[in-house]
Amino acid sequence: SMHWIVTLTCDDRPGIVHAISGAIVEAGGNITESQQFSSGDTGRFFMRLQVESDAPREVFEQALAPVTERYAMEWQLDVVGRPLRTLVLASKAGHCVNDLLYRQRAGQLAIDMPLIMSNHPDLGSLATFYEVPFESHAVTTPGQKLAFEDRILEVVEQHDIELVVLARYMQILSPELCEQLSGKIINIHHSFLPGFKGANPYKQAHARGVKLIGATAHFVTSDLDEGPIIEQNVVRVDHASTSSELVSIGQDEESRTLTQAVKWFAEDRVLLDGARTIIFR
Amino acid sequence: SMHWIVTLTCDDRPGIVHAISGAIVEAGGNITESQQFSSGDTGRFFMRLQVESDAPREVFEQALAPVTERYAMEWQLDVVGRPLRTLVLASKAGHCVNDLLYRQRAGQLAIDMPLIMSNHPDLGSLATFYEVPFESHAVTTPGQKLAFEDRILEVVEQHDIELVVLARYMQILSPELCEQLSGKIINIHHSFLPGFKGANPYKQAHARGVKLIGATAHFVTSDLDEGPIIEQNVVRVDHASTSSELVSIGQDEESRTLTQAVKWFAEDRVLLDGARTIIFR
Amino acid sequence: SMHWIVTLTCDDRPGIVHAISGAIVEAGGNITESQQFSSGDTGRFFMRLQVESDAPREVFEQALAPVTERYAMEWQLDVVGRPLRTLVLASKAGHCVNDLLYRQRAGQLAIDMPLIMSNHPDLGSLATFYEVPFESHAVTTPGQKLAFEDRILEVVEQHDIELVVLARYMQILSPELCEQLSGKIINIHHSFLPGFKGANPYKQAHARGVKLIGATAHFVTSDLDEGPIIEQNVVRVDHASTSSELVSIGQDEESRTLTQAVKWFAEDRVLLDGARTIIFR
Amino acid sequence: SMHWIVTLTCDDRPGIVHAISGAIVEAGGNITESQQFSSGDTGRFFMRLQVESDAPREVFEQALAPVTERYAMEWQLDVVGRPLRTLVLASKAGHCVNDLLYRQRAGQLAIDMPLIMSNHPDLGSLATFYEVPFESHAVTTPGQKLAFEDRILEVVEQHDIELVVLARYMQILSPELCEQLSGKIINIHHSFLPGFKGANPYKQAHARGVKLIGATAHFVTSDLDEGPIIEQNVVRVDHASTSSELVSIGQDEESRTLTQAVKWFAEDRVLLDGARTIIFR
Repeated sequence: SMHWIVTLTCDDRPGIVHAISGAIVEAGGNITESQQFSSGDTGRFFMRLQVESDAPREVFEQALAPVTERYAMEWQLDVVGRPLRTLVLASKAGHCVNDLLYRQRAGQLAIDMPLIMSNHPDLGSLATFYEVPFESHAVTTPGQKLAFEDRILEVVEQHDIELVVLARYMQILSPELCEQLSGKIINIHHSFLPGFKGANPYKQAHARGVKLIGATAHFVTSDLDEGPIIEQNVVRVDHASTSSELVSIGQDEESRTLTQAVKWFAEDRVLLDGARTIIFR
Repeated sequence: SMHWIVTLTCDDRPGIVHAISGAIVEAGGNITESQQFSSGDTGRFFMRLQVESDAPREVFEQALAPVTERYAMEWQLDVVGRPLRTLVLASKAGHCVNDLLYRQRAGQLAIDMPLIMSNHPDLGSLATFYEVPFESHAVTTPGQKLAFEDRILEVVEQHDIELVVLARYMQILSPELCEQLSGKIINIHHSFLPGFKGANPYKQAHARGVKLIGATAHFVTSDLDEGPIIEQNVVRVDHASTSSELVSIGQDEESRTLTQAVKWFAEDRVLLDGARTIIFR
Repeated sequence: SMHWIVTLTCDDRPGIVHAISGAIVEAGGNITESQQFSSGDTGRFFMRLQVESDAPREVFEQALAPVTERYAMEWQLDVVGRPLRTLVLASKAGHCVNDLLYRQRAGQLAIDMPLIMSNHPDLGSLATFYEVPFESHAVTTPGQKLAFEDRILEVVEQHDIELVVLARYMQILSPELCEQLSGKIINIHHSFLPGFKGANPYKQAHARGVKLIGATAHFVTSDLDEGPIIEQNVVRVDHASTSSELVSIGQDEESRTLTQAVKWFAEDRVLLDGARTIIFR
Repeated sequence: SMHWIVTLTCDDRPGIVHAISGAIVEAGGNITESQQFSSGDTGRFFMRLQVESDAPREVFEQALAPVTERYAMEWQLDVVGRPLRTLVLASKAGHCVNDLLYRQRAGQLAIDMPLIMSNHPDLGSLATFYEVPFESHAVTTPGQKLAFEDRILEVVEQHDIELVVLARYMQILSPELCEQLSGKIINIHHSFLPGFKGANPYKQAHARGVKLIGATAHFVTSDLDEGPIIEQNVVRVDHASTSSELVSIGQDEESRTLTQAVKWFAEDRVLLDGARTIIFR
């Protein structure tokens, strides 16, 4: 039998759970996992269900259709464990890419990576070891940047990419690209946002003498470092930590935070509620 | 309008969610929170719902009755925020009792404490400050122990006690009492169980040179320190910590772990699945 | 025999440890704890020693004098466990004050509190229970604020106060007072600074959808929320937490963070290195 | 100029710090880091110093000799950053080996790995990618086990190995080998010892319903899972985690805990105090 994931959102009102569960019973399904949230901020209702069923997709969709229409739901039907088509953008630092590749191969992260793109060739051999295609293009002139972004869109189109991951890709994307791929780009910022936005966050953290440093995985919007936060982690540091030690200490938080965010996204656990995210862990 | 909590458990099979949500629609209720779990170990299904509704209790019960009967459910209907009638047993150490009292008064912990019983008089003034009745009885002879346990049962009866909390009560309860109040006694053990069972866990922890010490809140069974675990926390220590410093460091974990367990229990978030607990956080 | 604490700072150069340890040998002392740090940012050397010795203070001071002069040290000689004379300022919220009082009585926090001052009468009975004098004065007009600050300085003078603790005292102190008591006022800010400076940090945190909230204990300077950080802690929250739940969740971090900072300060473990703190834990 | 590490231990008595710092001044050294500990359990004194100096090793050793003799010290002189000659033993699971290799290459872990030995060929290509020699030998008969251990000793001899790391090597070493390499073998146990000793700790943890699982890096002794603990970490799990999910969740803790322990050992930060370790972090 198949395991399905249903995610949906609509304006909150009574009877939604009963209506949805009715459609699932009709399709011969059994709910094995269920999470819901009613947002006090936006008045929206959010739900994620895992359903065990022998029914084919069409039967499922037919059963759900009247309900999703009645409540004007945005919804999605996915299969548990289906690898998410993911484009990874990287630069020189390998810790985040290495973690994604290692966990993907180890079976802990259901993504397909048809390509890794970088503005530096450094991570080529790592990609090769994990048998993931890799291309690098210099991005130092405005023209090169434009070409790089065109190539991104081409790859997204060609491979039907569902998620673009900025795995310490150190370039700022154009507002147009952010807009076009809205809700589909996840970035890892190497600070505990909203603290230390912008460049050199570890240097800022050292100067300010913070006692914990962190990392933030968030959706990319054209408003730099302000997109909806998906996950954050921190680690303790002390007065003896230099800026460059903070960099090294922080890398673990960066890679585990980014991998966690990608994993949740790939499992359809991340929903958007205005400027905030719902995470159905 | 009222906010209800429905908790239920039954053998797992398809259609439960739909049946329950149907009953709730029938009673004019709106599900605002929902959690469920199907146990692979025992084949049991567990659910906790919060429901907003104007219906009186009888209407609710009538609507639920056919469903709970059909699925042979064990179930319970409670009101959100209703204070749980709680008997606290203590000894000399005040940190756990202080935390329960402080949070109860601060409105963070929905319990009523009609009485604190202790085998020492030390905590009397603390109880008095928080205006909770307090009685202490020496428990040094078998006869005194018997009398103390009789008094517990009398208080449980008299105040219709729903939970007995061992807030560092240093006596072992008789198997008969454990049996009689099964599933209704929560203890705090000052170690990260199953490590360091029995007496003097901090001394054991020091001798063994562990790098983290912890606390465990668990249901009390006649099998000492083996009851179902509700919550655990740890804190980092190092080689310089003496046994007595471990005692002091560990007290914070003890009190926050116990308070957390009591809070979840009072909010009907703790269900039993054989020797394990389901915690609907 | 006595246990002494020596803290010192001077420009970093070779031979300091040998010179200091020589003076301690001369005074018949045995070093039982030693921590040092050379700041790459400021070129300053910092040290904290615990010394066991039978020598009286004068002998100690005589032995140290030539060394502290040669290296132009700022230094201090204290006795392990001596209670720090502490003035607590509070407002309505009791969680931080309660924690300070409870731990002081429990013997975990070596401070003397000759007085708690507040701009509201709410915490009077708590102070009374712990037998700490309490006075409250309305602080709603500029004149009242001036009078309150005059009273602070009077109390500092009268009781030879070594530390002023802002235990959720919700008023901004005047730059003059900050200046006058520089390095002697510790505040608890209810956010993970530098994120969410200013008012209503939990509301800001909710709006921004952060996944961890925190608390920061820092020295007060006239530059609001920018003083040197002493300690920080965070706790995980999720999308379901409302602003007011964040307030409640965050209180534990606030009180344990503030108490920790006060404890370290009372144990002479906090030294200033420009805008950063050295914490000899 | 060079950066040296001095580690030493001797019976505790007054004057040690002064004597040692005098020898360092004599050798033209400047102490940049210093940690010490007096063990109340064993009466031993432990110290670790980092020293900046232009003096060659002989000068250093000459200066230290009278002091180390007078106090009957066990001591060691090392160079900061010198890679530790390390033999890694593995089996099928790659997470720990991958972490060691990745961090070694990234410059975060100062070890040399002249060889990885395994009882399975699975990790060969990973080793090859990181250009570390790899050999695998079946270890299913007593004779094969004997041969494998002989080969270990041969490699230790040939490469002057300073540390053997059991990176989820699933075989129990013979008491003779444990004895011969005493204090030089670090194992990662996939539980929070002393809880869940022996086989299948995650299965035990699931059955017991613990709320945190952990990992323990410890020295190997002939007393299985009882050697001195170097580092421990835990991670939160809940009722919904199956045994096999615990395995996956726990792997992160295993690899970071083991890598941390190896890093500290390579930096001469781990000293033995009876059955406990001193960690100069």
